Amino acid sequence: MTVRVAVDALGGDRAPAEIVAGALAAAGEGLEPVLVGPPELDAGGLRLIEADQAIAMDEPPVEAVRAKPGSSLVRAVRAVAEGEADAAVSAGSTGAMLAASLLHLRRLPGVLRPGIAVVIPARRGPSVLIDAGANADARPEHLLQFAHMGAVFAEEILGVAEPEVGLLSIGEEDEKGNQLALGAGTLLRASGLRFRGNVESRGLLEGEVDVVVTDGFTGNVALKALEGTIRTLLDSLRAELRSSLRGRLGGLLIRPAAQRVRERLDPETYGGAYLLGLRGLVVIAHGSSSRVAIANAVRLAARGVEHQVVTRLEERLARSVLASPTTSPTAER
Amino acid sequence: MTVRVAVDALGGDRAPAEIVAGALAAAGEGLEPVLVGPPELDAGGLRLIEADQAIAMDEPPVEAVRAKPGSSLVRAVRAVAEGEADAAVSAGSTGAMLAASLLHLRRLPGVLRPGIAVVIPARRGPSVLIDAGANADARPEHLLQFAHMGAVFAEEILGVAEPEVGLLSIGEEDEKGNQLALGAGTLLRASGLRFRGNVESRGLLEGEVDVVVTDGFTGNVALKALEGTIRTLLDSLRAELRSSLRGRLGGLLIRPAAQRVRERLDPETYGGAYLLGLRGLVVIAHGSSSRVAIANAVRLAARGVEHQVVTRLEERLARSVLASPTTSPTAER
Repeated sequence: MTVRVAVDALGGDRAPAEIVAGALAAAGEGLEPVLVGPPELDAGGLRLIEADQAIAMDEPPVEAVRAKPGSSLVRAVRAVAEGEADAAVSAGSTGAMLAASLLHLRRLPGVLRPGIAVVIPARRGPSVLIDAGANADARPEHLLQFAHMGAVFAEEILGVAEPEVGLLSIGEEDEKGNQLALGAGTLLRASGLRFRGNVESRGLLEGEVDVVVTDGFTGNVALKALEGTIRTLLDSLRAELRSSLRGRLGGLLIRPAAQRVRERLDPETYGGAYLLGLRGLVVIAHGSSSRVAIANAVRLAARGVEHQVVTRLEERLARSVLASPTTSPTAER
Repeated sequence: MTVRVAVDALGGDRAPAEIVAGALAAAGEGLEPVLVGPPELDAGGLRLIEADQAIAMDEPPVEAVRAKPGSSLVRAVRAVAEGEADAAVSAGSTGAMLAASLLHLRRLPGVLRPGIAVVIPARRGPSVLIDAGANADARPEHLLQFAHMGAVFAEEILGVAEPEVGLLSIGEEDEKGNQLALGAGTLLRASGLRFRGNVESRGLLEGEVDVVVTDGFTGNVALKALEGTIRTLLDSLRAELRSSLRGRLGGLLIRPAAQRVRERLDPETYGGAYLLGLRGLVVIAHGSSSRVAIANAVRLAARGVEHQVVTRLEERLARSVLASPTTSPTAER
């Protein structure tokens, strides 16, 4: 079986050159990237789905998606909805990808809100943070669903049996947190998941649990704090080393090690984030993605197809969430 | 004038030895630390206010403060309320300090909620994050008040004229954020403060603005993400360097520079956080504070007294917040 991944050739700061190069790099046995872009695009031999318009990063997402059904971003998502591709990847606007996915792929039965799942390449091994930004405002029952989605992701994509789930909060004791976290904690303790309780952002990069559950606002703040701190700390170290001969010599010697640490720990280098809870597979890549990041995002999408993440999610949510008396899954459909 | 700072000798993981040593180190011209602890404590020549009981880190704050009015933590706060000291410092439970302060010092007129102000030793110079954890749930008008408090703090303690204020959110555009951030943004744009708009946690350690405003849940998550990332990144770098001869040599050469960067950027090394919005000055030190951290916290408290932070806050809040039609300052008094 060959997995076909639709790649938005016009999304991201470095489109189309780096996107096309990344898609080409990912192409291989069992994986066929399909580019979505203008007819004149040099697709390097890959199949091309024609789409002329682009959606800019700063366009209001819902309006842009409705106004530009023929844009490369929307067309890539529609390719999944219409069976032309098995998954879609874009480095374009996250909001537009979310809007296009809700409109054209729709939610899985019982799913209240899709969530963005990001892999944190933590020191003790990869873990997943969900929601990393799809829902700025959330309710406890959304976090419960994110926990189930994150657990399926950890099992299928990270290969963890019986993943441990933690709730991001501001203290490890059950009674620490805001109203949202307290409510989610109550649901999670009764969920049947392997719930470890509250975890603090202090341990995010260390990797105390396999799945870290939070709302999209907090998750986005935590993730960007992590990315920014890595960048600022390494930049500061570099500047400090340049100020002395001893430092310059030391800097030269540690360069490969520092590079390895940065590449291993920075979530940005992971390529992309899954949008979970939909009737199709969507991966959102960083806006600044290079060809390497795009190739990784395409492979990440293909892995999700091979592991049937969507089907597994549907089964899991039907079993555990629809059965739960604490949620009212029909309320927002 | 001599500033008297009451220091809780029984608060923190390393009490009383490191606390007493820190207080002694801070003592000097114009600064008199006053220890609060058991009668048998060797105060090294400092004045001692007797207090036998201690409040443990994991005791429920409000209950502990009510049940132990004679504890060292409560007694230190009461020393300020009763005029025996000009400020109080404790490395004990943050929640208990907050509860004791609300009970014995009370809020400044018009203040809805006190906020914790932490100095972020950012690369472009120090900035202040408020609220770093006093209020897990907050409303837009609380964030407006935190912005005013943070501005006074930046002026008086950081020495910034007309500080720039940013609202922590998940995108720089005004329409990005959760309901709380959107509401706070509206109030801040009309506040008369030098409001820069939304800022992302990515730039927190870089230092894009002088005052970063947020609720206590988000602020605490961001701050701990920053602290944890610094620790994990440097630990990982150290482990990576140890694995080769080249790395070990490089590691030896960069050690002083790495140490300087860590000390400069890690918020933990700053000594303490202010609890603002009260009729007295309170500084909360890290639970793990060493003598150096305690000495810094005592000096930080003295600086607040010298700069009349409480009076300046009262004037500012009376002028700008009580006058604002968007808040109802009497509602929670």
